[in-house]
Amino acid sequence: MEESLRKLDAFFNPCSVAVIGATKKVDKAGHVIFKNFATNKQRGVFKGDLYPVNPGEDSILGFRCYPSIKDIPSDVELIVIIVPAKVVPSVMEEAASKNVQAAIIVSAGFKEIGNLELENQVVAAAQKGGIRVLGPNCLGIYYSKTGVDSLFLPETKVLTTGEDVIATPRPMPGNIAMLTQSGAFGVAALDYLTGQQMGVSKFVSFGNKCDVTDSEILNYLLHDKETRVILAYVEDIKRGRDFLKVAKKVTAKKPVVVIKSGKGEAGARAAASHTGAIAGSDKIYAAAFEQAGVIRARDMEEFFDVGKALAMQPPALGKNIGILTDAGGPGVMTVDELEMLGLTVEPFSEQVIQEFEKLKADGVILKIAATHNPVDLTGSVTDDQFEIAADLMFQDSEIDGIIFLGLHHMPGLREKYIDSVAKVARKYCKPLVMCDIGETEMALYTRSRFARLGIPSYSSPEDAARSMKGLVTYGLYLQKNNCAEEYLKEYLQRRDKQ
Amino acid sequence: MEESLRKLDAFFNPCSVAVIGATKKVDKAGHVIFKNFATNKQRGVFKGDLYPVNPGEDSILGFRCYPSIKDIPSDVELIVIIVPAKVVPSVMEEAASKNVQAAIIVSAGFKEIGNLELENQVVAAAQKGGIRVLGPNCLGIYYSKTGVDSLFLPETKVLTTGEDVIATPRPMPGNIAMLTQSGAFGVAALDYLTGQQMGVSKFVSFGNKCDVTDSEILNYLLHDKETRVILAYVEDIKRGRDFLKVAKKVTAKKPVVVIKSGKGEAGARAAASHTGAIAGSDKIYAAAFEQAGVIRARDMEEFFDVGKALAMQPPALGKNIGILTDAGGPGVMTVDELEMLGLTVEPFSEQVIQEFEKLKADGVILKIAATHNPVDLTGSVTDDQFEIAADLMFQDSEIDGIIFLGLHHMPGLREKYIDSVAKVARKYCKPLVMCDIGETEMALYTRSRFARLGIPSYSSPEDAARSMKGLVTYGLYLQKNNCAEEYLKEYLQRRDKQ
Repeated sequence: MEESLRKLDAFFNPCSVAVIGATKKVDKAGHVIFKNFATNKQRGVFKGDLYPVNPGEDSILGFRCYPSIKDIPSDVELIVIIVPAKVVPSVMEEAASKNVQAAIIVSAGFKEIGNLELENQVVAAAQKGGIRVLGPNCLGIYYSKTGVDSLFLPETKVLTTGEDVIATPRPMPGNIAMLTQSGAFGVAALDYLTGQQMGVSKFVSFGNKCDVTDSEILNYLLHDKETRVILAYVEDIKRGRDFLKVAKKVTAKKPVVVIKSGKGEAGARAAASHTGAIAGSDKIYAAAFEQAGVIRARDMEEFFDVGKALAMQPPALGKNIGILTDAGGPGVMTVDELEMLGLTVEPFSEQVIQEFEKLKADGVILKIAATHNPVDLTGSVTDDQFEIAADLMFQDSEIDGIIFLGLHHMPGLREKYIDSVAKVARKYCKPLVMCDIGETEMALYTRSRFARLGIPSYSSPEDAARSMKGLVTYGLYLQKNNCAEEYLKEYLQRRDKQ
Repeated sequence: MEESLRKLDAFFNPCSVAVIGATKKVDKAGHVIFKNFATNKQRGVFKGDLYPVNPGEDSILGFRCYPSIKDIPSDVELIVIIVPAKVVPSVMEEAASKNVQAAIIVSAGFKEIGNLELENQVVAAAQKGGIRVLGPNCLGIYYSKTGVDSLFLPETKVLTTGEDVIATPRPMPGNIAMLTQSGAFGVAALDYLTGQQMGVSKFVSFGNKCDVTDSEILNYLLHDKETRVILAYVEDIKRGRDFLKVAKKVTAKKPVVVIKSGKGEAGARAAASHTGAIAGSDKIYAAAFEQAGVIRARDMEEFFDVGKALAMQPPALGKNIGILTDAGGPGVMTVDELEMLGLTVEPFSEQVIQEFEKLKADGVILKIAATHNPVDLTGSVTDDQFEIAADLMFQDSEIDGIIFLGLHHMPGLREKYIDSVAKVARKYCKPLVMCDIGETEMALYTRSRFARLGIPSYSSPEDAARSMKGLVTYGLYLQKNNCAEEYLKEYLQRRDKQ
């Protein structure tokens, strides 16, 4: 591993961690963070040495507490800092003596409230000591595999009623990396991803980005085997040229989806008062993202939806989409949205149309079914009809991807079609995304079952269409840059192993 | 009640119902529909007389079965028809002899597959007999209060595993009327509305619209005390001038939100093969809707989201929105979306800014809070701070509505702020909508609690912004047409009664 990556690796795979500002006081961030590490150590997840640092305590949660980092008997690889801002420069100086490689500064009170000089002092001390810094004013890192969890928001929260409820869950392990400049959006994302059963490889909250930048973490994730897709919330990007260069390298291998906020005049003003971000011209960002193959999401839902699609399915190598439905209206809504997004829903090739006619003649599918694209098997659909139609549509060389609207309400459907349609999709190297509308028992079951089978599922036709657009955008980018073939080769190797 | 309304009322409040094509065979539509009525009669919900009609059965579910409608000993007000299409004209002729007022034709096989002549025969027979017809090729009506339920999709479905699961739920009673030209979208909507705990006043599925039109039902709903908001899925509108005239009358009193599909070229082609709709120029529809004060939703989610907002909150009489948040990033995302929708997020009046400065000086809210709009109370927010800030923001005469981003993750929040912010909103006649991001325990609880307190809640900043846009669009329309004052007067009277 090259030196720059090795340094960053200390954030995710540290042999030892000291929590500066750990405390016994339950409500304090210093308690929550230390407890995260202590619990993960007890569970056998965090395998490194763990040191609480606080001059006012003897021990915390059974761990001997040290008055200062200098008193720790051995070297420390990662420190997490939650002490008042003004103390942080001296902590950094002491840390250098313990060969610290990486520091997460959770503490706020720096550039974001005008204390630029203090932040500069921290950076200077860190550079002198050879320490990489994440933050300040950040949540830091969550990495389930090694038990690094510097999030000061506890998983559960006690209400005034005395009830203990899940408030800020940690998602299960998975192949999506989540980067965020906004801590609040970051915790919201953890909650959302957990609820959507989307697994996370690495979570990084940047805060003020005084040292470690987006570009560096992107580069780290390029080499991270667990990460397949990178989601990033950004308000501004420092060193734009670096970012472009790195992003271009990354997107040849792994999709990157961003939500860039602070778009218009009022939005930029709001961003400035939030993270001190100078949002800059939105058009410049848009052009830069496009050039680097970074997919920009229109809003929060599209951000996660597109990420989910890219994490599960191959990209589409063309923009002509097939629609298979048992619901006419939602089928039309899908066509509308695809058209608006610049994709097409062209009639099938003559051969496939003939095959559909034959299926009608043989009584396999109903004569009243529409089969020119969309294929509308009507409310009289059966499980088998869905399977047969999906297979036929995939065979059409003019079809680059399929949106499957399998509304579970139709009386002839049992749950068999879920597994069989998912199985059909695995025979081909074209993307399939699905939609079932509804929020009660059977809808939730259907979507969740499809997701477990590797088919991203959505609750509205337009969400499905937008996700397909993400798959098309990425596929066409790969193609233009001559890396589609290799990407798909690796995709298929991974899929075959599953 | 005028004659035309009285006739339509037979669809919703019939003294007697005959189900033509009722059967004992469990899988058949004729069984499901008859069972709906029979069950509702047992429960005491459906209070009219009920007659199954089928020459092949003696009795169904304990009800004496009649070979033909002519054999029923008394008059019948509403008939539901589920017999093969070719038999329907003769059924209609017989029905006339029983003084039938209204017929729901569930059967398919008419204009939608080219059998226009058969459909015309039905219409002619009905007109001769003075019978109003809904359908054919429709689901018909669901009205929880009187137990009219002609939906052939049973509430539960038995899977191949033998499990009985909720598949097509019926929503609870409420103030939203749902009209649909697509049956499949209609059942999906029932599922969605139920899951979102949005109550429904009347549900009408039109199918081929051979007789009863959207305009007539709109006019009926104008006089329906239970309906406050009308949601309509349409692919085409017949007799456009009638629709415009009626819609204009309705929107002065009740908001109408439509999703009009078949927008572009491919979409229109898909719509034509679905309901035979001639979608026509989308621009003409857009202009007509705008002129009539009908709010057009961009997609499915916006359709329901805007409907929910209008059902719960007063419209906004201006387009300048205040944002109150504990999450900087999502605050910026909200500003972005509002700006893109043509709304504004202007700094507060000098007086309110001064009041906020005073709150900071007094230590009531943190010095690092941003207070110029958006108000970002930061991750250190408390329940009380939210309440105080919301109240102050409502007092600014330049603020026309508030989006409240209360992300539950922040450690200082207990659930107290939910009730207190909702209570503050009730002191004013400006809309409040809220957003909390996440899909796990506390997020679901928070959103559902707000909804029960009359505050529409959303799971993304952009969804909240789009709902606010709906409230602004409607408010400005009312204002322009000089009916805002009366609308708000009636709104406040209703709210005070709750």
